[in-house]
Amino acid sequence: MRKSTMHIPGVSDTTDETRTPFPLDQWYVAALSKELTDKPLGRTLLCNKVVMFRDGQGDACALEDRCCHRALPLSSGTVEACGIRCGYHGMLYNGQGQCLEIPGQDIVPPRAKVKKYYVQEKDSIIWIWFGSDEAAEPSHSAPDYAIHSSGDYIWDGAAYYYEAPYQLIHDNLLDLSHLGYVHLQTIGGDAKTHMNAEMNVTAEADSVRVVRHMPNSTPPPTYTAAYPFSGLIDRWQEIEFHPNHLRIWTGAVDAGSEEVNDPARGGFHMRGFHGVTPETESTAHYIWTIATNPESNHEEVLKKVVAQTALTFDEDKVVIESQYANMLSFGETPFISIHVDAAPNRARRIIDRLRTTAE
Amino acid sequence: MRKSTMHIPGVSDTTDETRTPFPLDQWYVAALSKELTDKPLGRTLLCNKVVMFRDGQGDACALEDRCCHRALPLSSGTVEACGIRCGYHGMLYNGQGQCLEIPGQDIVPPRAKVKKYYVQEKDSIIWIWFGSDEAAEPSHSAPDYAIHSSGDYIWDGAAYYYEAPYQLIHDNLLDLSHLGYVHLQTIGGDAKTHMNAEMNVTAEADSVRVVRHMPNSTPPPTYTAAYPFSGLIDRWQEIEFHPNHLRIWTGAVDAGSEEVNDPARGGFHMRGFHGVTPETESTAHYIWTIATNPESNHEEVLKKVVAQTALTFDEDKVVIESQYANMLSFGETPFISIHVDAAPNRARRIIDRLRTTAE
Amino acid sequence: MRKSTMHIPGVSDTTDETRTPFPLDQWYVAALSKELTDKPLGRTLLCNKVVMFRDGQGDACALEDRCCHRALPLSSGTVEACGIRCGYHGMLYNGQGQCLEIPGQDIVPPRAKVKKYYVQEKDSIIWIWFGSDEAAEPSHSAPDYAIHSSGDYIWDGAAYYYEAPYQLIHDNLLDLSHLGYVHLQTIGGDAKTHMNAEMNVTAEADSVRVVRHMPNSTPPPTYTAAYPFSGLIDRWQEIEFHPNHLRIWTGAVDAGSEEVNDPARGGFHMRGFHGVTPETESTAHYIWTIATNPESNHEEVLKKVVAQTALTFDEDKVVIESQYANMLSFGETPFISIHVDAAPNRARRIIDRLRTTAE
Repeated sequence: MRKSTMHIPGVSDTTDETRTPFPLDQWYVAALSKELTDKPLGRTLLCNKVVMFRDGQGDACALEDRCCHRALPLSSGTVEACGIRCGYHGMLYNGQGQCLEIPGQDIVPPRAKVKKYYVQEKDSIIWIWFGSDEAAEPSHSAPDYAIHSSGDYIWDGAAYYYEAPYQLIHDNLLDLSHLGYVHLQTIGGDAKTHMNAEMNVTAEADSVRVVRHMPNSTPPPTYTAAYPFSGLIDRWQEIEFHPNHLRIWTGAVDAGSEEVNDPARGGFHMRGFHGVTPETESTAHYIWTIATNPESNHEEVLKKVVAQTALTFDEDKVVIESQYANMLSFGETPFISIHVDAAPNRARRIIDRLRTTAE
Repeated sequence: MRKSTMHIPGVSDTTDETRTPFPLDQWYVAALSKELTDKPLGRTLLCNKVVMFRDGQGDACALEDRCCHRALPLSSGTVEACGIRCGYHGMLYNGQGQCLEIPGQDIVPPRAKVKKYYVQEKDSIIWIWFGSDEAAEPSHSAPDYAIHSSGDYIWDGAAYYYEAPYQLIHDNLLDLSHLGYVHLQTIGGDAKTHMNAEMNVTAEADSVRVVRHMPNSTPPPTYTAAYPFSGLIDRWQEIEFHPNHLRIWTGAVDAGSEEVNDPARGGFHMRGFHGVTPETESTAHYIWTIATNPESNHEEVLKKVVAQTALTFDEDKVVIESQYANMLSFGETPFISIHVDAAPNRARRIIDRLRTTAE
Repeated sequence: MRKSTMHIPGVSDTTDETRTPFPLDQWYVAALSKELTDKPLGRTLLCNKVVMFRDGQGDACALEDRCCHRALPLSSGTVEACGIRCGYHGMLYNGQGQCLEIPGQDIVPPRAKVKKYYVQEKDSIIWIWFGSDEAAEPSHSAPDYAIHSSGDYIWDGAAYYYEAPYQLIHDNLLDLSHLGYVHLQTIGGDAKTHMNAEMNVTAEADSVRVVRHMPNSTPPPTYTAAYPFSGLIDRWQEIEFHPNHLRIWTGAVDAGSEEVNDPARGGFHMRGFHGVTPETESTAHYIWTIATNPESNHEEVLKKVVAQTALTFDEDKVVIESQYANMLSFGETPFISIHVDAAPNRARRIIDRLRTTAE
């Protein structure tokens, strides 16, 4: 992968040219399964322009988004039974990137091919592998996400795009104290409740876990819209950070009614999957789903929960993009950390450690 | 202040790295008083991103527009009785830039603060001081502008924004000969009258004064719309340039009726205040007011005069921005000066002399 | 002319600073005659900002688009009987670029002038000459294009603009095999017919000629809309490349009815003139006309043919601009040539040979 000399102030030191800007030996979220229809999907991931499509068997494939003839994006082409056809002169490629046909020409030279990327589709998520060693196969399998497949939840999601480096999205998701200031209309509520939540941060290998409790608190708008709480609630937020995605399990039971630490707890649940994938060093894809467990009116509650979650992320996008624009304006000015930064700062150190040393 | 290596062709030699791009030991116009309401106002001034707001006493304050925690613009936050609160995690700053509260944390470390700027509010104008020595207090008081406070005039104004260096606005205001070509619909009129006006240019210390007379001339549309002239007019234009603003006193009496050089002359008056404040080396704020003295229908005439003035500056904006875009295209090609450039060229030399020598 | 250090990947090696980015000793298409009305026309051609206008005799003139006083674009000024007047302070220039008048000033200094360019207007096309030696007159006359003046055809055209280097437009026009993939709605049709057309490529001096035949083929939508073919058609495409423009003569007769190689053949004709003029190294003007020979309903058929041609070029614009954006993303990755590239590659070599060696 090309190394960049761009430096994101306050995010990662990419001026060190012996390091790559992102951890490479990871599966990253490339798309939700539902995004791959009968049209090709072009998306830049970790600075690689990629075209994704389904082959004749319905398997997800990913190639470099550039016809080897005259550099047209293959994502402007058409998907056929045997692969993808360029929209300029009709060269046809299979899912391995090998050219199968050059219309009007008998011989297809072996060098007529494009790079292919390793892809795994699991639990309605399409993962992609870039890897520090371009020739090597992935060293492990893509993550499972059973929530999508278990049948215990109904869920939906979308692919969002941020004009900001992906680590600022990590910060935002690992530090839910901002809910009281940013998300007043949806999942927020009294700011002091959020800023003073009981919080426990632990780290293990490449992951960080944050557990926050807000006992006896007022249910926020999204919660009351989706679940018949009788009054105050005991609310939990469990955040699990991995270098390529986060899982956030939030919810609440009627205050005092159940043990909120018990994973078998009842009440209202929202389980978020957050695929945070760099587009470039300064832009990111945020591919999310939200799963919930209503007692009735399933479709209606799901619509509400998805709409409220989308609204929440719209609010985050405004904050994070204006934060990043300001960081660019102010350059190297250092940050001052406060109590809420414990988990984000640990995640930073993990990402930093995993940034592959370039050869 | 950061020094720039950007070079504005035909404007100022900023390739000389021992000089700052603007005179620093000056008060600059930051805003009109009416712009500071109960919301914070973010504005970049002389390359500094600034947030302005009123404290609990109603006093105008100006801070660096960057929360010291995670760099969010404070201008996206909220104004409270004690200061301004960041919209991400709720850190609260007073008008001196000191952090008063970090929600959820007992101790506020002393280094939790942002830079404050010196501000003076006088005669409905908010002035700001950057200074060549960042630690030093302003060496003198901000200018008075009695017109706004005297009660002899009614006035209004607005903050305009130009995609052009501020010295091109100086040129435009110091050389009113362009009225006959650019402002045909408002304050212009016969081009030859404007190009052949009697003109007297004098300079003293850091200011330039231009007096122009157009005796026996036809009143332009704005004048006839606002005042009952009986026929031809004796028209004057008195321009006073200062490095941080200009004052332009124009008007007319019925031809032959009064001594136009007498400051106590009657007739129709338009007194312009022109705060020309660099945003960056290549962009500028143009914060203006226009005051007038109608005999009757005050509100109606004021509306007309303000609307016509705004239209005039809209016309100037088009000209100046296209001039600057062309200067960028053509690079170093020198200018050829003509008779109208006497005053603009003097102003250029004053600005050049005042550009503080950096240490 | 300024030399650029910009490098267009896959197009031309402009990193060689001893070469100019374009052949200079050529007439280039600056505009269609109909574009020069009573207003000035500003257009950047080969990196030169040019203003064009008609003088009092109706002759087309071209000057540098910059007033020598304060760099305003003259294209924002007004056309008068003696020349063009700047819209800021009224300086008046004749078609030779000499300043004739400085309003309010008696003397016009001899250095008050702007550069003029050689222009020839022939057959409703305005050609311009830049030349490797700025002082020298053009070494030959601008091309004729009798089709516009003969009366045998009716025609119309337009000036298009591409965010792509001009040589990508050459490629597109010299390789009509793409019709079956890009232009399905207009002049395309079965892809295999186009990719397998009989093709003959010859080159001579600075031109390339391509002749393609598609006997017994199905008439495409534009053809059936404009001409009463009885069934299958014998279709021809004759393309003539010159470094500054292309001529494309396409058409068809009823299958088996006439000798398609005979220039006196009947049937339906579309004769395209394609002025491909670099704006910069990465952008281009595409100034085209289309002439045709309907048997009846002249105005109606012409409208149809022009509309369909415009639609075809709209489709090409999307393809070429996305191709170029992708080339910029992927950098130096080499192209793989196929059978359709024979003519485009010859044209590339001609352009490359003609790029004047800078002194």
